[in-house]
Amino acid sequence: MPITRVPAAPVQPRTGRLHPLGIDEVRITGGFWAERQRTNASATLPHIFAWLEREGWLGNFDLAARGGLPQGRRGREFSDSEVYKYLEAVSWQLGNGQDAALEARFRATVARVAAAQEPDGYLNTNFGRPGQGARWSDLAMGHELYCLGHLFQAAVARGRTAPGADDGLLGIAVRAADLVCGVFGEGGLAAVCGHPEVEVGLVELGRLTGDPRYVDQARLFIERRGHGALPDHEWGRAYYQDDVPVREADVLRGHAVRANYLSAGAVDVAVETGDEDLLAALRRQWSRTLARRTYLTGGQGSHYQDEGFGEDWELPSDRAYVETCASIGSTMFSWRLLLATGGPGYADQIERVLYNVVATAVSPGGDRFFYTNTLHRRDPGVAPDPETASPRAFSSLRAPWFEVSCCPPNIARTLASVAGLVATTDADGLQVHQFAPATIRTTLPDGAPIGVRLETDYPSSGVVRIVVEEAAGRPWTLTLRVPGWASGATLTRVDGGERTGPSGEGTIRICGDFAVGEELRLDLPMAAVFVRPDPRIDAIRGCVAVRRGPVVYCAQSAAGVAGAPDLAGVVVRTDRTPEPVDAGIRVAADWPAQVEAAWPYVTTEDAARPATVGDLVLIPYHDWGNAGLCTMRVWLPAAREGR
Amino acid sequence: MPITRVPAAPVQPRTGRLHPLGIDEVRITGGFWAERQRTNASATLPHIFAWLEREGWLGNFDLAARGGLPQGRRGREFSDSEVYKYLEAVSWQLGNGQDAALEARFRATVARVAAAQEPDGYLNTNFGRPGQGARWSDLAMGHELYCLGHLFQAAVARGRTAPGADDGLLGIAVRAADLVCGVFGEGGLAAVCGHPEVEVGLVELGRLTGDPRYVDQARLFIERRGHGALPDHEWGRAYYQDDVPVREADVLRGHAVRANYLSAGAVDVAVETGDEDLLAALRRQWSRTLARRTYLTGGQGSHYQDEGFGEDWELPSDRAYVETCASIGSTMFSWRLLLATGGPGYADQIERVLYNVVATAVSPGGDRFFYTNTLHRRDPGVAPDPETASPRAFSSLRAPWFEVSCCPPNIARTLASVAGLVATTDADGLQVHQFAPATIRTTLPDGAPIGVRLETDYPSSGVVRIVVEEAAGRPWTLTLRVPGWASGATLTRVDGGERTGPSGEGTIRICGDFAVGEELRLDLPMAAVFVRPDPRIDAIRGCVAVRRGPVVYCAQSAAGVAGAPDLAGVVVRTDRTPEPVDAGIRVAADWPAQVEAAWPYVTTEDAARPATVGDLVLIPYHDWGNAGLCTMRVWLPAAREGR
Repeated sequence: MPITRVPAAPVQPRTGRLHPLGIDEVRITGGFWAERQRTNASATLPHIFAWLEREGWLGNFDLAARGGLPQGRRGREFSDSEVYKYLEAVSWQLGNGQDAALEARFRATVARVAAAQEPDGYLNTNFGRPGQGARWSDLAMGHELYCLGHLFQAAVARGRTAPGADDGLLGIAVRAADLVCGVFGEGGLAAVCGHPEVEVGLVELGRLTGDPRYVDQARLFIERRGHGALPDHEWGRAYYQDDVPVREADVLRGHAVRANYLSAGAVDVAVETGDEDLLAALRRQWSRTLARRTYLTGGQGSHYQDEGFGEDWELPSDRAYVETCASIGSTMFSWRLLLATGGPGYADQIERVLYNVVATAVSPGGDRFFYTNTLHRRDPGVAPDPETASPRAFSSLRAPWFEVSCCPPNIARTLASVAGLVATTDADGLQVHQFAPATIRTTLPDGAPIGVRLETDYPSSGVVRIVVEEAAGRPWTLTLRVPGWASGATLTRVDGGERTGPSGEGTIRICGDFAVGEELRLDLPMAAVFVRPDPRIDAIRGCVAVRRGPVVYCAQSAAGVAGAPDLAGVVVRTDRTPEPVDAGIRVAADWPAQVEAAWPYVTTEDAARPATVGDLVLIPYHDWGNAGLCTMRVWLPAAREGR
Repeated sequence: MPITRVPAAPVQPRTGRLHPLGIDEVRITGGFWAERQRTNASATLPHIFAWLEREGWLGNFDLAARGGLPQGRRGREFSDSEVYKYLEAVSWQLGNGQDAALEARFRATVARVAAAQEPDGYLNTNFGRPGQGARWSDLAMGHELYCLGHLFQAAVARGRTAPGADDGLLGIAVRAADLVCGVFGEGGLAAVCGHPEVEVGLVELGRLTGDPRYVDQARLFIERRGHGALPDHEWGRAYYQDDVPVREADVLRGHAVRANYLSAGAVDVAVETGDEDLLAALRRQWSRTLARRTYLTGGQGSHYQDEGFGEDWELPSDRAYVETCASIGSTMFSWRLLLATGGPGYADQIERVLYNVVATAVSPGGDRFFYTNTLHRRDPGVAPDPETASPRAFSSLRAPWFEVSCCPPNIARTLASVAGLVATTDADGLQVHQFAPATIRTTLPDGAPIGVRLETDYPSSGVVRIVVEEAAGRPWTLTLRVPGWASGATLTRVDGGERTGPSGEGTIRICGDFAVGEELRLDLPMAAVFVRPDPRIDAIRGCVAVRRGPVVYCAQSAAGVAGAPDLAGVVVRTDRTPEPVDAGIRVAADWPAQVEAAWPYVTTEDAARPATVGDLVLIPYHDWGNAGLCTMRVWLPAAREGR
């Protein structure tokens, strides 16, 4: 099995506009994300392992190995995938730095998975044994291929962070992938999985191993979809994107995790096969989804019922589902389009999601999670039981684990590999997409070495210093993303005083034969600003939100606290500028007296009501719920707003 | 079995402020509801019967009788109840007028049900046989007692419209009720059904038969609820109102049909047992539910996921679930409170629901139905297959039948008995709650006969003429509800010219020894008006709706019709008065140019946009979707509206 040496990055396209860098080439050295990476390693990974054991999802593999299934099996039909996502997260974490105990746990876990694999490569604890459903008998909802997709991603992560390791994970994946190709290949079972994910896994496994069958199998899965490959569904075939062929769709729809995972896999296929038509279709779908079906936080998914997208403009704050995993899926989709095309708007979406969904979905302690990320909570709900897996969404407090617990390990693998989203290279030089204290050491395609250090306390400030640590020995271009929210950004050559503005299309570029020690400074304006929605987003008509840099703010009201502001009755004054204060951002607000009526619909025009005048201090949305049960809202009714 | 002769009315409390009149005492003779009653009899009842046969839900009883269950059973676990609701609807219809063919079909259907009843009285096609779940083994979701509740209501309807009939339905019900009392009585299984309904059925059966055990059993079911009688549920015990004891709750919550049916049964129990505390609790719950959790149409239920209530003020238009059955349940609850207390606000809610949900949920032809009644539809969806049961909500067109088809027979029984909601009596005289062309003949408690004729084309106009047709021979009081929307109502003694205004609290009263032929005239103002929501209903901030009398209007846009108005971009001008025109009500509107942006959240204030100026003609909400696939909205963004 030939293994090409590649950077330790989650996505390694054969072609494309930009080349990803591995997490061995980009090291985040401090700040917002380093803190979260430390917590992820020290708290989240052990927490996930403990719950995988406690809930028996890891034990299912042991039972499978010794013939204890199906009676003893615990968890939902897709619980194997959480073990694989955990293995992927650990692989990236070990790529961030050696850890003998974690390495040992990783190997022991892989051994338990290996013991459950059947001789022909089949691996799933929920199907195929006497008393269980037959293999591939419930492709619509059984998640067998979905689970294998996560297995493949885990094996790829390990293969790229520890090439040649003798733990056996890559072999497990290859045997399973070979079986999938045998069963579902040309002339085989012309079917797809109800939950896309195997596609991204197969393409990446193909990229890692060089085996062309895997990419071709992914291509088959993409092409089969949308022709009624799956049975009709209570909520229509759009639920699992089997309503319209991928290349004919114009927007993401149905289950939001499925839609994003499928799109990510389809970009992979388009890039590997040179399918420009498919790539163009996916870019169009991404654009309309961002323009009409995405929340201010970058989150996606408006419906509780099907965890799915709503129609265009259907973006309720109070029933925003915004599943954590859907946002991670949007990051996967966006990153692949960024690599394929270089468009900085894709990095904008990644930034939005990282600061406002991923950072929100995990507690500061790393052991509590949001499955859904609503933008408006009127009732604090009740605190989750710390000893029990929670339903998906019922409290303003994060929960330790869920009955469907896809989100915690998804967060863990994302945080462990987040350095891979910071920068890329091309023949001209280096592109920085995300701003964090970091060191970047790589070589350009012609072999020229470059090294820079990023110094910043972003997103607290918008100043990013770029210090050259290794000279390329030839001129090269530094390209910095200018976020869509940042108008008036400048890049300054500190020594020379030369100042550059945006080059258009969301970047600032500067070319030079930079010497070691040379310093450049990016200045991004970081004022707190009011944000207004498109008037067609009915649910938030007449409201504003506050954003500072990439960070969305919210009003939070502690439950049962005397004097806590009434978030149901507040009206923000937009004629006063939002002002940063120690606790957050202060806005001026009125609390008009409420009229308590027997019937809430009246024919009289809203008369001036006596109002209490005061301030409301907003906090970063990603910090909401940290202080206890509360109400919360991102969008605030505004005085004197048009529509 | 002693049967007391009672009026042919669905609800016959032992005590209470007002006495119901039977459908033999109030005859609707024309107009809005007579038309719908005719269609109900000629089209809806045959349609329901055909689908009950086609789907095998009636056939299940035949299979049960000849041992063909469980293999051959079709339909959901509660499908028996649709047969019972059909029998109830037919009973009321036969009470409206003899029909030999319908009578024969009724008897034949009862015979098929009777054949499936087991010797001890048990009756359910989904439980109790080898290969089925044991009796009462899934009280949370099995709906056994729920089905029996509908059986009891059917038997009561028959008992009151055809007392002494030898069809056997009452006997079936009594045997089943006796079994229920034996199993679930004091010292028996201390359990409740996950779907309330048996409570209303038991009380009414007790009222009809005089057997006190039935009311007592209903009381037990009410008292047991809210103490964790049921297992925890994915959406919490509030889903089936087992979170808080009925007398301690402060608002309706959870599944909206369950909540209303339970509340109706609890009023019945409170009235029969003289439990003033329980009655007061239910009145409070009704009031807060109306003030904070009810749509402009009177509809209830904000969530698709659990068909349930949202929190206070959570009333999204676009995902309004507003299940038809929940609104019928609200009518049941409201009517019982009206009888108990005389409060005219309860009749207001009944009127709202009748004109804006019940009338909406059935097509003009009587053979197509809405299960949900949204207030905003952005996408027309696709036409339901006329040959297949539809999912509950996916199109702007009504469907012939549903996989869960509770609504069609619920509409049928409501329409067939709607005359029972028109008027009541007390010692003082007659109260008219709903306005329709009708004749009312009854006797006051002291035996004095009264007869009046109502002449009106309400709700087209607000003029109601009341002509005395039978003199009581003593002074009595005529009390007319003045709807909450009608300010400036007057009652005029046509001969004497005497004019009376509202007496406060929602009625106009006039006392007299009215002679035969004497005429009074009620004038209700019927201008089309803009309605504004409480500012805490976030989903419709900055919007207005149009109402004329009890009828809510909506904007409708035909799909694919060139030049059809864009309902996503419209802004209504509230400085122009809504104007009745032939096609509906005309409002002035602007269509500002839309800005198509890559990201729909901006920091600039909404600048004046060039607008197309025009008119929008609104139609009665109950007529929407009649003309084909369309978009629709009740709440319209308004220019210059405060919040």
